[in-house]
Amino acid sequence: MLALLLAVLLYAQGDGSAPATTNLMNQSYPRVYADGRASFRLLAPKASKVQLAGALGAAPLEMAKGEDGFWTLTIPPAVAGFHYYWFLVDGVAVNDPGSEAFFGYGRPTSGIEIPKPGEDFYWPKDVPHGQVRSLPYLSKVTGQWRRAMVYTPPGYDQNPRARYPVLYLQHGAGEDETGWSRQGHVHFILDNLLAAGKAKPMIVAMDKGYAMRPGEQAQPRDPDRMARERAAGTLRASTFESVVVEDLIPLIDRTFRTRPGRDHRAIAGLSMGSMQAMQIGLRHLDKFSSIGLFSGATVTADLETGYDGVFRNAVEFNKKVHLFWLGAGGAESRLVQALETSDAALKKHGIEHVVYISPDTAHEWHSWRRHFHDFAPRLFR
Amino acid sequence: MLALLLAVLLYAQGDGSAPATTNLMNQSYPRVYADGRASFRLLAPKASKVQLAGALGAAPLEMAKGEDGFWTLTIPPAVAGFHYYWFLVDGVAVNDPGSEAFFGYGRPTSGIEIPKPGEDFYWPKDVPHGQVRSLPYLSKVTGQWRRAMVYTPPGYDQNPRARYPVLYLQHGAGEDETGWSRQGHVHFILDNLLAAGKAKPMIVAMDKGYAMRPGEQAQPRDPDRMARERAAGTLRASTFESVVVEDLIPLIDRTFRTRPGRDHRAIAGLSMGSMQAMQIGLRHLDKFSSIGLFSGATVTADLETGYDGVFRNAVEFNKKVHLFWLGAGGAESRLVQALETSDAALKKHGIEHVVYISPDTAHEWHSWRRHFHDFAPRLFR
Repeated sequence: MLALLLAVLLYAQGDGSAPATTNLMNQSYPRVYADGRASFRLLAPKASKVQLAGALGAAPLEMAKGEDGFWTLTIPPAVAGFHYYWFLVDGVAVNDPGSEAFFGYGRPTSGIEIPKPGEDFYWPKDVPHGQVRSLPYLSKVTGQWRRAMVYTPPGYDQNPRARYPVLYLQHGAGEDETGWSRQGHVHFILDNLLAAGKAKPMIVAMDKGYAMRPGEQAQPRDPDRMARERAAGTLRASTFESVVVEDLIPLIDRTFRTRPGRDHRAIAGLSMGSMQAMQIGLRHLDKFSSIGLFSGATVTADLETGYDGVFRNAVEFNKKVHLFWLGAGGAESRLVQALETSDAALKKHGIEHVVYISPDTAHEWHSWRRHFHDFAPRLFR
Repeated sequence: MLALLLAVLLYAQGDGSAPATTNLMNQSYPRVYADGRASFRLLAPKASKVQLAGALGAAPLEMAKGEDGFWTLTIPPAVAGFHYYWFLVDGVAVNDPGSEAFFGYGRPTSGIEIPKPGEDFYWPKDVPHGQVRSLPYLSKVTGQWRRAMVYTPPGYDQNPRARYPVLYLQHGAGEDETGWSRQGHVHFILDNLLAAGKAKPMIVAMDKGYAMRPGEQAQPRDPDRMARERAAGTLRASTFESVVVEDLIPLIDRTFRTRPGRDHRAIAGLSMGSMQAMQIGLRHLDKFSSIGLFSGATVTADLETGYDGVFRNAVEFNKKVHLFWLGAGGAESRLVQALETSDAALKKHGIEHVVYISPDTAHEWHSWRRHFHDFAPRLFR
């Protein structure tokens, strides 16, 4: 917040715009206006066409060339939150030289934060801070080196006898193990919740949701199969599931002072990660007792026959699963509908659960920050 | 190594090339040959000129357009090590969509690893691993949030009574606090040294070597002034020095189980970071007892009148400074010369020191990995 304030003081122009908080040091573009508009520019004097592409528009937006060789565009007020973007310079994808890069779309990609006025639960504050630790490990499943990112709460080192529950938390498609800290600010959200006494101290383990066994080939995306499986409530095994169960949980349990056992273990994820959280969580209720599904997985198949039958006996499910949490961004209208269907079916069946819709946000990180902010305080109670 | 091996097995073509280890997942370009050649390609069917720019050549290298719209180039054998690069597409800087990005040149930039056959001290091995921790803090000096990256050695959490010495380690110009782990592999080098019993367990603190007080303006680079000061042996105060002394050291000492006091504290850095290590280290011999200068700082000014007189009394200096280490890459010929001059002057003056020249490497990270590999085992003895 202080950095933002200083940026505003130093750079604010008469038009009330300021450099995005996602900019590189001393970069004045892109700029964000108080009403959510944003201005972009790129120097490309020899290009014949420059567009703004990514999550800010359904299709690439045309930029206009000035006599100085700068292509510029001011977009109408955008949904508050974090949006990936890049320029298309005569069709070639180019990151904004003014922006930090964030891992999305399978590669480092520019991103812009459109702030939500009055909301600061995800910014660093002058409270005790946890650490985000990077931990290399050789996967028995894939035969390759991987990296876990692990949040430890404030006080972890100062209380060498304390033990902590663990949340396994996954990113979305095209992202990686850095997403939840860099785009999601998960460490700041938890630091702030903990300082306010609103959450239990916990460890958060974040890994990359992609994994292949030696020789395994990537399967082409098959939307028909996915729709069939969603309708049937099929829970699929995956190589990543094996990484979580055979590599990651043992690694976290032997490296950190965890509370062992399912009661002290949760799994959650966003978008693709929510599918993984649902499949891994429901297939391993011996290992996890809480599940969070952020903007992706729904429960619209038959609760008697689908999902390996885990919902069949509601009394048993409610006793076993301490938190079953589903969320979406308010602007994700089809998903919101599917969650209403899920909500009704779960209620009718007597399955305890929480549904949360983040007001006015889209399929982007600000929804997921708010999801986490609602989800985390309910964990490990 | 295993990942590299698998990559070779899976992707090696008849020509013996394999995807660079610095590539993104499943990306087959750029490719590296056993003799150090490398092939690059970029799809840009509408571009009229594409060049390969960065640290691989003194000037941008022309790429050739194929009928399929791909621009390609194979460069002659490059010096082994890590090289930043990017494409210039009609003059616009474009990162390689096949490469990871590394923070250099003031922004996320593509990088390619040209391996040195037979050398693996900087690759992850099946040994106990330390952690690289990210730690946010609000700087009293700058008024802004900053981030320290901190390596803790294997066993740190398992030995809650052990205390550790600390090395403060800085990146070069245009880089940031991620450089030493991402490009430098400092954590793997130390893990390997520790497993072999060749170094003392230590904490390594890495911060960003840029800092401004509120309202402070960036000073334009002034090569004349720098040359004058180098000739006179001037040690300059800096805002970053204040961050190290007033923010960072207290943060590290109160957050980690450090051994307090100068005997257990060292400072080192590469290129710009070596200037900072020399200035901060020599100006604060009450705080640091060992200094490492990697590819940058030299000692060619008068040892009686320069450097605030710290070298004047050799007996006193040798008693106070446990390690004074200077290095360069063998291909940095002007710097090698300046180190020879420094070496002779220090010897003549009776100042104990180490000079190390990394065979055949340039002003890039492989020199600095080797520097660290020679420097670290000599620390805290």
